[in-house]
Amino acid sequence: MSAYEVIEMGGLDAWHEFAGGTTPGKRFVDKELPLQNVGMSANAAEPGSRAPFWHTHEKLEELYVFLAGNGQMGLNDDVVDVQAGTTVRVPPGTWSTWRALPDSPEQLRWLCIRAGGAALSDIGRDGALDRERPAPWAE
Amino acid sequence: MSAYEVIEMGGLDAWHEFAGGTTPGKRFVDKELPLQNVGMSANAAEPGSRAPFWHTHEKLEELYVFLAGNGQMGLNDDVVDVQAGTTVRVPPGTWSTWRALPDSPEQLRWLCIRAGGAALSDIGRDGALDRERPAPWAE
Repeated sequence: MSAYEVIEMGGLDAWHEFAGGTTPGKRFVDKELPLQNVGMSANAAEPGSRAPFWHTHEKLEELYVFLAGNGQMGLNDDVVDVQAGTTVRVPPGTWSTWRALPDSPEQLRWLCIRAGGAALSDIGRDGALDRERPAPWAE
Repeated sequence: MSAYEVIEMGGLDAWHEFAGGTTPGKRFVDKELPLQNVGMSANAAEPGSRAPFWHTHEKLEELYVFLAGNGQMGLNDDVVDVQAGTTVRVPPGTWSTWRALPDSPEQLRWLCIRAGGAALSDIGRDGALDRERPAPWAE
C-alpha cells in the first residue's frame, strides 16, 4: 500500500459529468481510491430527479453533506429540506431516500460518507503531532 | 438514539464564520452530531495560512476532499497541489500537513473525514433497498 493516493474530481460545477457508476452523476470514490474504512460517493442530480429506491444499512453509519442546490430527504416518516451546508447523520436502521426539487436553481450536489464497525470512541486518541518538523514547501 | 440528526453549516462562503473549535475556521461535525463511526471536520483557511503541525494517525484512515481555493498538502516527503475536487486518501502511518497558498483567490475549504477499525470489505454488503415504498413527498 502506498503512503497516499490522489484523484481529481473537479469543482462542483463539473460533477454532472460523473458517469462511471451505476447512476449518471454518481461517483464511488471508494472504488477509485483503495479506501479501507471510509466509504464515499460524490453525487450530482438534476432538478426534479429522485432516488429510484429507499435504502437502509444494518451496520454502516452514513453522513450526507449537501453542497449545492435544493432538495429533500425522506428519513423514515419525515421529510427534511436540504441545501448547501445541510449535514445529516443517518444511523444504521434508518430508511432514507432523496430528491432534487423540481425548481432547484441548480443540480443537487452532495457527498454521502459511510463507515462502520469500530466506534470512534473505542478507537480513542490515535493521533500524533509533530510541531518541530519543517514545512515541506519553500516559504 | 434518534433516527437521524441534522445541522446546517451554510454554503462554502459561510465556512469562514466557523469559530467553535480549537482553530477558527474549523468545525468538528462529529462533536455536534452523535456520530459513532464517521468523523468529519469542515475547514476554511485564509490564503497564506498553514497547519500549525504535522500529524499522523495510528489507526484511522483519513480522506481529504478539497472544495474551493488553492493549497498544498505535505504527505511524508511529497508536496501535492490541491484545488476544488482534489481528494486524497491518507492511510494510517502517513504524516501530513497543509497550507493555503498565499495567492489563493479565496479561502481553502475542505472536509477531512476519518474512520477506522473495521474495514468496509469486512463489513460487506449490509444494505437493503425498497423499490416499492412510496415517495415521502407529494408529487
